[in-house]
Amino acid sequence: MQIITSRDNAKVKRLASLHKRENARREGLVFIEGERLCRDAFESGIKPFEVIVTEKNVSWAEEYAKEAEMTVLSEDCFKKIASTVNPQGIACILKQPVLEKEIPFRGDGNDIYAVLEDIQDPGNLGTIIRTADAFDFTAVIMSPSTCDPFNEKTLRASMGSVWHLPLVTASMDDAFAFFDKNNVDSLAMHLKGEDLNDADLKLPAAYLIGNEGRGLTSETSAKCTRLVKIPMPGKAESLNAAAASAITGYVLASKRK
Amino acid sequence: MQIITSRDNAKVKRLASLHKRENARREGLVFIEGERLCRDAFESGIKPFEVIVTEKNVSWAEEYAKEAEMTVLSEDCFKKIASTVNPQGIACILKQPVLEKEIPFRGDGNDIYAVLEDIQDPGNLGTIIRTADAFDFTAVIMSPSTCDPFNEKTLRASMGSVWHLPLVTASMDDAFAFFDKNNVDSLAMHLKGEDLNDADLKLPAAYLIGNEGRGLTSETSAKCTRLVKIPMPGKAESLNAAAASAITGYVLASKRK
Repeated sequence: MQIITSRDNAKVKRLASLHKRENARREGLVFIEGERLCRDAFESGIKPFEVIVTEKNVSWAEEYAKEAEMTVLSEDCFKKIASTVNPQGIACILKQPVLEKEIPFRGDGNDIYAVLEDIQDPGNLGTIIRTADAFDFTAVIMSPSTCDPFNEKTLRASMGSVWHLPLVTASMDDAFAFFDKNNVDSLAMHLKGEDLNDADLKLPAAYLIGNEGRGLTSETSAKCTRLVKIPMPGKAESLNAAAASAITGYVLASKRK
Repeated sequence: MQIITSRDNAKVKRLASLHKRENARREGLVFIEGERLCRDAFESGIKPFEVIVTEKNVSWAEEYAKEAEMTVLSEDCFKKIASTVNPQGIACILKQPVLEKEIPFRGDGNDIYAVLEDIQDPGNLGTIIRTADAFDFTAVIMSPSTCDPFNEKTLRASMGSVWHLPLVTASMDDAFAFFDKNNVDSLAMHLKGEDLNDADLKLPAAYLIGNEGRGLTSETSAKCTRLVKIPMPGKAESLNAAAASAITGYVLASKRK
């Protein structure tokens, strides 16, 4: 077994470069570091084409990613490619999944969609995807300007859920065309909406959440079936986007038959 | 007006040191950077004793913090004390609020409490406090090992809500003694609980959320009136702590009369 021990090794330099998300994305790759994140992907059926481990993790790699090419680095070299001070010594590279273009439809009367217009915080995106997975949404639909779902922070916040349900990139126009065609109610999360408690909710439904700073654009809100608001009797003017998404997702999921 | 222009100035060094949370905490101070975070605090009635601004923000300081001592730094010096690459040039120092020891009780039959056992992620803590504020909880009760509510990430996630409602540090024993005395239902958020949809919920109530990695301790769960679970028909095994808190808070708030 060959162990790379030089930080100047070309392979080490390439791996360190791929750990910068923009470099990996340019090559259509995802670099994942850490045992939990790697295992989340493998157990969801994602096959890495390369695993990078320190010597003590070789048997882990042989167990979890036997078909992948294995690169073994010294502890010191691994630190160069890692983002944490005390890395676990486990990372992998996989081909970036293609985001779906077609919005899936189950048609069983229980479809729920989260639609994200330009969400910018990777932690929020990951948490929203995790909640969508927990409530068995049909898909998460993201506007083209929504942040990258394969960003390391998103992967961490999603706890593996990015691999569990369809993530679709679609323009808001395409999303509304789909909703119209399939009779999907569209709910704009909007501070001027009617109380979520009082709204006449029915499935299939999609709820739309806007950018953290400015909310939904007025064009998008205007196209929705109704505007809804989570009642907030306290002093906070708004909820975190992922918290609002969790509440609305829960309420819609409780309408399923 | 004196403008400090040397990065080696003793005052600049002290401010840079206070920006490290552990140093500020040791002195019983909170260092806040950024216009929005500073203004959130001032508008909630918190009086800073020092504002630190660049020359272009002097009039801002005079408007929002007229009673505070003002220190003016050059743009370059401000960068030394800031955590962002392009800082806005606005920061302040305030006395760290004392966390309450006594749990407040309104007694109007609508009291709701979030109880956090060792939450470790500052972003989660801030988001939970923001949601608690939005739903007008009586207080957020934190175990002594819960992370620091005046951490910069917590302040950012709370969007000013840390200044809006009572934050109490209490042992779980003290919390349960209070709940018993005041007839407050205690709900353990627990993966083995009954469905939140089916649970017989009544107010006043507290819900208890455990550490992100291991959930509630079995000692704490055992003391609760009931165990409840948010139904998750999908593949995710659990929800983010702040997402679970938002859902439970919403459901309890909707029981108010």
